Amino acid sequence: MGGTKMMAVVFDDQFNKLAAAKKKTKGNAGAEAGLNRIGETIAAAIKSADLQPEDIAGIGIGSPGPLDLDRGLILATPNLGWRNVPLKATLEKQFRCPVVVVNDVDAGTYGEYRFGAGRKNRCVLGVFPGTGIGAGCVYEGKLIRGRTGSCMELGHFPIDPRGPVADVGRCGTLESMTSRLAISAQAAQAVYRGQAPALQALTGSRLDRIRSGALAQAIAEGDQVIETIVRHAARVLGVAVAGVVNLLAPDVLVLGGGLVEALPKLYREEVQAAIAENAMPAFAAGVKIATAKLGDDAAALGAAALVAGKVK
Amino acid sequence: MGGTKMMAVVFDDQFNKLAAAKKKTKGNAGAEAGLNRIGETIAAAIKSADLQPEDIAGIGIGSPGPLDLDRGLILATPNLGWRNVPLKATLEKQFRCPVVVVNDVDAGTYGEYRFGAGRKNRCVLGVFPGTGIGAGCVYEGKLIRGRTGSCMELGHFPIDPRGPVADVGRCGTLESMTSRLAISAQAAQAVYRGQAPALQALTGSRLDRIRSGALAQAIAEGDQVIETIVRHAARVLGVAVAGVVNLLAPDVLVLGGGLVEALPKLYREEVQAAIAENAMPAFAAGVKIATAKLGDDAAALGAAALVAGKVK
Repeated sequence: MGGTKMMAVVFDDQFNKLAAAKKKTKGNAGAEAGLNRIGETIAAAIKSADLQPEDIAGIGIGSPGPLDLDRGLILATPNLGWRNVPLKATLEKQFRCPVVVVNDVDAGTYGEYRFGAGRKNRCVLGVFPGTGIGAGCVYEGKLIRGRTGSCMELGHFPIDPRGPVADVGRCGTLESMTSRLAISAQAAQAVYRGQAPALQALTGSRLDRIRSGALAQAIAEGDQVIETIVRHAARVLGVAVAGVVNLLAPDVLVLGGGLVEALPKLYREEVQAAIAENAMPAFAAGVKIATAKLGDDAAALGAAALVAGKVK
Repeated sequence: MGGTKMMAVVFDDQFNKLAAAKKKTKGNAGAEAGLNRIGETIAAAIKSADLQPEDIAGIGIGSPGPLDLDRGLILATPNLGWRNVPLKATLEKQFRCPVVVVNDVDAGTYGEYRFGAGRKNRCVLGVFPGTGIGAGCVYEGKLIRGRTGSCMELGHFPIDPRGPVADVGRCGTLESMTSRLAISAQAAQAVYRGQAPALQALTGSRLDRIRSGALAQAIAEGDQVIETIVRHAARVLGVAVAGVVNLLAPDVLVLGGGLVEALPKLYREEVQAAIAENAMPAFAAGVKIATAKLGDDAAALGAAALVAGKVK
């Protein structure tokens, strides 16, 4: 479940994809309408797989947070404006099967650990730069979590007190300096100055149009200033990731998210260089840097695997 | 085992301290002599407890690293100059009991988790600023570790590329900016400029004499510039710790080490303020900030508890 769309996927017990359904999230219609849409999307996916609700062994949901993981509540979602949404209780009543609610980035990291770029590794760190910066960590087979909710809030890492304003009262977080929005804001200035003709033709200086794909296309078409902006952001992200490598000594770093999907080589190069320069040599040598393999399916697969682990 | 001294403590099965023995480490006498001294210190503690070596159920050792935890090897110690020291194998042969080798900071963190300020908590983050900056984390009852050795190398966190030179090729790590050595280097300059009369009288501008206790005494005697230097370092440390709080959402943060032992109130204040400003509000509210309770005994107790867990 994301800020703009939601997707329900039906898997068999070997995690083969049987069917899927999508809807827009429409967060501003309110939490009750949202809960109904979630139920409808799941029901549509079940129907599309030629199954009945009673055939479903369990439902796993990756959701933006903060969440209460044990009670399966959405406590608040800044993107959707929902508060205290009883996701688990409502869906368990509707579908009469166990429901597991997990942070969306954690679901994606767990999916990559079970089925993708992090398979069979002791410690997998997932870093997903996009509109925000998400991260998750599977350590010895389990997601690292906070007491009641998820953790690994890498985007809120304090980087530079002179950096841009990020949240009320905080400046220079990693997200404020390296998210897709932060990059787009710099790219829009380059367009305004007439330094990025390809991006000018593609999007103009409108922030809402300068998405990861447009940035990648402008770079491919020769906007060098755009490449400099993105490489710089990727390097700053990489320095912060090097710090996390020093803390957790992961075996695999999985890079994913919108920016990495659009520019995988650039991101791998910059993050690798930042880790080589800033992580402990033994930890830098011990971490394999990979790009995510499962794309949009990672979170659905991860959530499905997590609920399967509870059901079996 | 530390860079300057080693201590062996004998505990009964309720972790009551029966006896202890101390020796200087004398790292520059070489690894073989060092191994002999370790054996002698352990034997002296056993004798002092009126016991025989065969009464000992197991030996736990906290050692500076990097280590190979599974094989019980000291791979290298920058402080001692030892390389590939078979600590576990040698002591198991000598004392005929299981030996567990663990990173010294991890041993201290585990000791505080089992018997001190972090007791019975789901996630305990230990941060120990002293000559260097050490950290460890007990997560759901177990130390977080790397593939072969320990991790949580908070001191090597990249903070500011404009910061002082720390290691070959790296500048502005947390340690280069906030360790006792970094603080003492600034304090020595204040002495040189005539701004710190109390510290001048205590130590002069000699870096090797400006230790945590002298800094605390100079502050108590009115050297305001020394207080400013230490508070600034504690705050910068706290901002980095806030980043770790955002990653791991610990339930307890245990502050220890030489600087905190000398200035517990100052460190708690500055780290608390930095966390309040820079951590996610829910994580800042959820973490209890405590000072270590066990002092020098933390590592011995932690190592003993770790080997007891293997023996039972």
